[in-house]
Amino acid sequence: MKAVRLHRYHERPAVEEVRDPEPTGPFDVVVRVGGAGLCRTDLHIVEGQWADRSNVPLPYTLGHENAGWVHAVGSAVEHLSPGDAVILHPLITCGFCRACRSGDDVHCEASRFPGIDTDGGMAELLHTSARSVVKLAPGVEPASVAALADAGLTAYHAVKKALPLLYPGSTCVVVGAGGLGHIGIQCLRAMSATRVVVLDANEEALALTREWGADETVVADGKHVDRVLELTDGHGAQVVLDFVGERGAERDSWAMTRRAGSDFVIGYGGTVQIPAIDVISTERNVIGNLVGSYNDLVELMALNAAGDVHMLTQTYPLDAVNDAMDDLDAGRLRGRGILVP
Amino acid sequence: MKAVRLHRYHERPAVEEVRDPEPTGPFDVVVRVGGAGLCRTDLHIVEGQWADRSNVPLPYTLGHENAGWVHAVGSAVEHLSPGDAVILHPLITCGFCRACRSGDDVHCEASRFPGIDTDGGMAELLHTSARSVVKLAPGVEPASVAALADAGLTAYHAVKKALPLLYPGSTCVVVGAGGLGHIGIQCLRAMSATRVVVLDANEEALALTREWGADETVVADGKHVDRVLELTDGHGAQVVLDFVGERGAERDSWAMTRRAGSDFVIGYGGTVQIPAIDVISTERNVIGNLVGSYNDLVELMALNAAGDVHMLTQTYPLDAVNDAMDDLDAGRLRGRGILVP
Amino acid sequence: MKAVRLHRYHERPAVEEVRDPEPTGPFDVVVRVGGAGLCRTDLHIVEGQWADRSNVPLPYTLGHENAGWVHAVGSAVEHLSPGDAVILHPLITCGFCRACRSGDDVHCEASRFPGIDTDGGMAELLHTSARSVVKLAPGVEPASVAALADAGLTAYHAVKKALPLLYPGSTCVVVGAGGLGHIGIQCLRAMSATRVVVLDANEEALALTREWGADETVVADGKHVDRVLELTDGHGAQVVLDFVGERGAERDSWAMTRRAGSDFVIGYGGTVQIPAIDVISTERNVIGNLVGSYNDLVELMALNAAGDVHMLTQTYPLDAVNDAMDDLDAGRLRGRGILVP
Amino acid sequence: MKAVRLHRYHERPAVEEVRDPEPTGPFDVVVRVGGAGLCRTDLHIVEGQWADRSNVPLPYTLGHENAGWVHAVGSAVEHLSPGDAVILHPLITCGFCRACRSGDDVHCEASRFPGIDTDGGMAELLHTSARSVVKLAPGVEPASVAALADAGLTAYHAVKKALPLLYPGSTCVVVGAGGLGHIGIQCLRAMSATRVVVLDANEEALALTREWGADETVVADGKHVDRVLELTDGHGAQVVLDFVGERGAERDSWAMTRRAGSDFVIGYGGTVQIPAIDVISTERNVIGNLVGSYNDLVELMALNAAGDVHMLTQTYPLDAVNDAMDDLDAGRLRGRGILVP
Repeated sequence: MKAVRLHRYHERPAVEEVRDPEPTGPFDVVVRVGGAGLCRTDLHIVEGQWADRSNVPLPYTLGHENAGWVHAVGSAVEHLSPGDAVILHPLITCGFCRACRSGDDVHCEASRFPGIDTDGGMAELLHTSARSVVKLAPGVEPASVAALADAGLTAYHAVKKALPLLYPGSTCVVVGAGGLGHIGIQCLRAMSATRVVVLDANEEALALTREWGADETVVADGKHVDRVLELTDGHGAQVVLDFVGERGAERDSWAMTRRAGSDFVIGYGGTVQIPAIDVISTERNVIGNLVGSYNDLVELMALNAAGDVHMLTQTYPLDAVNDAMDDLDAGRLRGRGILVP
Repeated sequence: MKAVRLHRYHERPAVEEVRDPEPTGPFDVVVRVGGAGLCRTDLHIVEGQWADRSNVPLPYTLGHENAGWVHAVGSAVEHLSPGDAVILHPLITCGFCRACRSGDDVHCEASRFPGIDTDGGMAELLHTSARSVVKLAPGVEPASVAALADAGLTAYHAVKKALPLLYPGSTCVVVGAGGLGHIGIQCLRAMSATRVVVLDANEEALALTREWGADETVVADGKHVDRVLELTDGHGAQVVLDFVGERGAERDSWAMTRRAGSDFVIGYGGTVQIPAIDVISTERNVIGNLVGSYNDLVELMALNAAGDVHMLTQTYPLDAVNDAMDDLDAGRLRGRGILVP
Repeated sequence: MKAVRLHRYHERPAVEEVRDPEPTGPFDVVVRVGGAGLCRTDLHIVEGQWADRSNVPLPYTLGHENAGWVHAVGSAVEHLSPGDAVILHPLITCGFCRACRSGDDVHCEASRFPGIDTDGGMAELLHTSARSVVKLAPGVEPASVAALADAGLTAYHAVKKALPLLYPGSTCVVVGAGGLGHIGIQCLRAMSATRVVVLDANEEALALTREWGADETVVADGKHVDRVLELTDGHGAQVVLDFVGERGAERDSWAMTRRAGSDFVIGYGGTVQIPAIDVISTERNVIGNLVGSYNDLVELMALNAAGDVHMLTQTYPLDAVNDAMDDLDAGRLRGRGILVP
Repeated sequence: MKAVRLHRYHERPAVEEVRDPEPTGPFDVVVRVGGAGLCRTDLHIVEGQWADRSNVPLPYTLGHENAGWVHAVGSAVEHLSPGDAVILHPLITCGFCRACRSGDDVHCEASRFPGIDTDGGMAELLHTSARSVVKLAPGVEPASVAALADAGLTAYHAVKKALPLLYPGSTCVVVGAGGLGHIGIQCLRAMSATRVVVLDANEEALALTREWGADETVVADGKHVDRVLELTDGHGAQVVLDFVGERGAERDSWAMTRRAGSDFVIGYGGTVQIPAIDVISTERNVIGNLVGSYNDLVELMALNAAGDVHMLTQTYPLDAVNDAMDDLDAGRLRGRGILVP
């Protein structure tokens, strides 16, 4: 089969023939890929930023946001059949540890991460586990939802954790109107009546968020923290969802968080730096956020099937992976890039 | 001032002149009534059904759903001024007990209930406490929201308690498409992405619920429990909100509740009757629901101000209270009756 | 191997030779039984009360509370080795459904229940799944904890669900000082500072509960509801754990539950019967309780290993199963009967 | 009456005669002080560290941890009588805002703080509000509990927030075996079965914590983080309660927190500094903690009355305030210093 293989860090991947994966273990599943999302993390992997974290042996296949159709299943898999349209939870998890059993499989003690530390989905076929497979509702095209498998799932997970804090009359600030913010805003609109205030430097991006459900938009122009405080009677917001996490956003997000409120860190790159006296005297929290669980992904697909959440995508053939990477790098990509084998 | 006074049980109330109330305690507030909701409970009071529960000395003034404008305040009230448009939490609470301090003021250890056990709001002026007063957003007419003070608040409270159970992909059955169901459906739509299935014997009422946000409607025709089980793959719903609570609804609601699910009792009249083995072998719950707290009312008014929740009303002059009661009794009243002094 | 086989309802089981079970599926585990708890449910099974619920084909092996040592494992089991001392979660669960993934595996959509609907642990060997196996801490004897696998786990689960309601200064009434109550009281003592009030008709049983952590004991003599109300300033308890569920306990438990409190139904036999107006006017809840989850069992074993919870047991050789049943039936059994193969 | 008055920053306070306070507002209460706790914050106030935060006009009376007996009450106070033994919540709160109504009165929008921004309790009489008064159980001496009003209440509040994370089998690290740690450990012991690991540089202090309920003690000697990781199979603790918050504790506490765990900041002085990628890739949280609510104080007094929590104290006459301050400053004070008028 064809696959997007990374041979050396700092060198673009190559599309080449590799052996087809097969189910070997009893709960293995091989999926024919319908779409594999391209993500800034893929660029970072090529740049070598993940080399020491993932320790993946090169060459290997990229692609950590995947959807497609079941192709073959292991001997013990009974609830999936070849041809089933599916989206894949990004992790392969053990199913035995406390985390896997308690809705927190993202913290599985023995997980693997296709596309990061083992072969991923920018290929014709992908090897995963029955535990990672979510069936799609009838009529849903795998390529149209692939990007929800990681980017969308991260946004959904953060919003879901924030919901208990977002009573009617509260304010939620969404920092960053990009891909994750896009999904975050739609999830907030579908599942809460909080006032959604969106912050971004790009006025065009902000304008679009009104359609997704934003109540207020604020241009990040240096006066944005004051503007948000003004919108909240000087108090700040009950929840700030920081989808940026760098270039000052990590500092401003804290400053826009109200007493007893929570600053959700989702984007990264910067450093959270807060005098302990500020943490305690206002009893604010910094909440870490990783990708969502398998059950979260099922819920997100229910939102998608109901028409509440969708993602803008632009498709490329698998062979054009480097064009897609160029477009992403140069800021030419509108929506999420999806590689279609 | 004029007031609707009940002199004897089983006799309709009379509109007559009584002395104006005045603030006597430091936190007292007298409100000029803009609208007082008429409710089936008022008919039950006249019929004497509440005589032994409330022990209110006759004559007294009816009206437990009230909104208006601040008329006069006690010596220690600083945050309210005459002329402020307000809606009133139905209870007068102490502010000192554990319940009052923990968002649960409905269970205040020393509350009074105007219109039930002391003079209510079917009058030109109403005596209450500063703790019960919620200011309205600019532009909101007291008469248009009065019915949210009790009926709406009860529906909101039940929905809010159910929200943590209503993940995307879940089902919530609303039993009864009347006044409370109306508000309940709108609240569910504004604050969750659950699938809302509405059940009622009246097909016209059901048809309307589609506009309020119902996803499915089921006519209560004897086959309705089977129909709901069918809609839920035989499992039943994660949550059933039983706004009826009598004439078999209290039995069917339990039958439509899924394993590990919750049956919220809101309406009353019937008897909950379940073999303990059914309770434990399926680990289902019966959840009691009373009117909401003060903070709940503030939240409901935020939903109303945002356009998410509104109630159909029909106004009557105070003098026409008995016409309104006749209309309500005869089923001629569309929406909630509001008496306007 | 030897096994306790039920051939006909209303006839006592026979101890006889059957074929040894072997792991057939990849995640199968065969356990050499160290101890199998005997329970009133076993008597009910013999009496045929479960025939229509379990639909188990006869003959089959009894025993649903089991602990022992791993004997053989399926091809895909990597985290267990022959000789490991283990206790078994009573259910065999699928690991794929929403319930299994969210800490709620008791509501697995495709579970089996050894000893109830398939062969159980009153035998030398037991066939189960890797998902059901909890390793014991070093030094813990399987026979000493077997009874925690079901009876203890049920009590632990109910207490854990009640904990958020049991703040210091609250009262928890434990109805029934038998096997489950015994564990429930110890769990309450280890994990809360609530005042524990124990109710039982047997004064000797009550006296023992003081050592387990009871703060107050009340003899169930017809005046017990009044006595509990007296102990709680007339209000009742925030939580009532009803381990009896029949012969009036199901009625009294509700009567001893405070406004906004919760009545946990754990025992069964009776019928919960409450006018809806009582449910709503006091906003009380009836909470269903089934056996605990796998993670609950891990937690209970942590309590046991720390010395916080232990169960009185009396051992019998497997061949003496009918003596043990006689003793249980006649009330001669002190503590839990454990069959040791 | 006599009072400890601060006239100038950087100068010790003087004990002098001032006018007796009297109830002026309807809900005012004047308390005859039985004991006023002395706290490191008092030293910091004298050093001027709070001058810009509190903006209190000098001279004023110190003392923010107070207990005593009701002396006089305002016209509207009905539930308190002169002579009642009481402990005082440290804040005077409004009772009308959302926070006051929802168990979060510490975040009252209009609070005052006696001893910090208005006259405190190092005096014969103290002016407060009926909302701040907690009645003591019969037989409890005000001086013996005064230190629970602020230091104890802070520790209790943090523990209570952490409880849902502390299942049996989990680990809670307590950083700092001083006054707050002392109470924190006792609260953990009374309300959870978590394994309590205590960290302190002082071996004598550590030795004492065994009696309060510590399961493990670790000397803070530079290798303590590794030691805690070793005790937790390399994972760290589900919860770290950092009662120190400076001199490296704020950094080590994060390092000892497990994936998906929470680092509770209670002490202060240092700066929390964490790369966002560490926050998100492990999904850990930083939780802010302020003093507890009024209801928290009632609960803490229930723990105290039940014998679960007590504090070591050393009393001084009011006139000896500067001896007490010298002893505290020089580390000669064992337990909490209590000034007794």
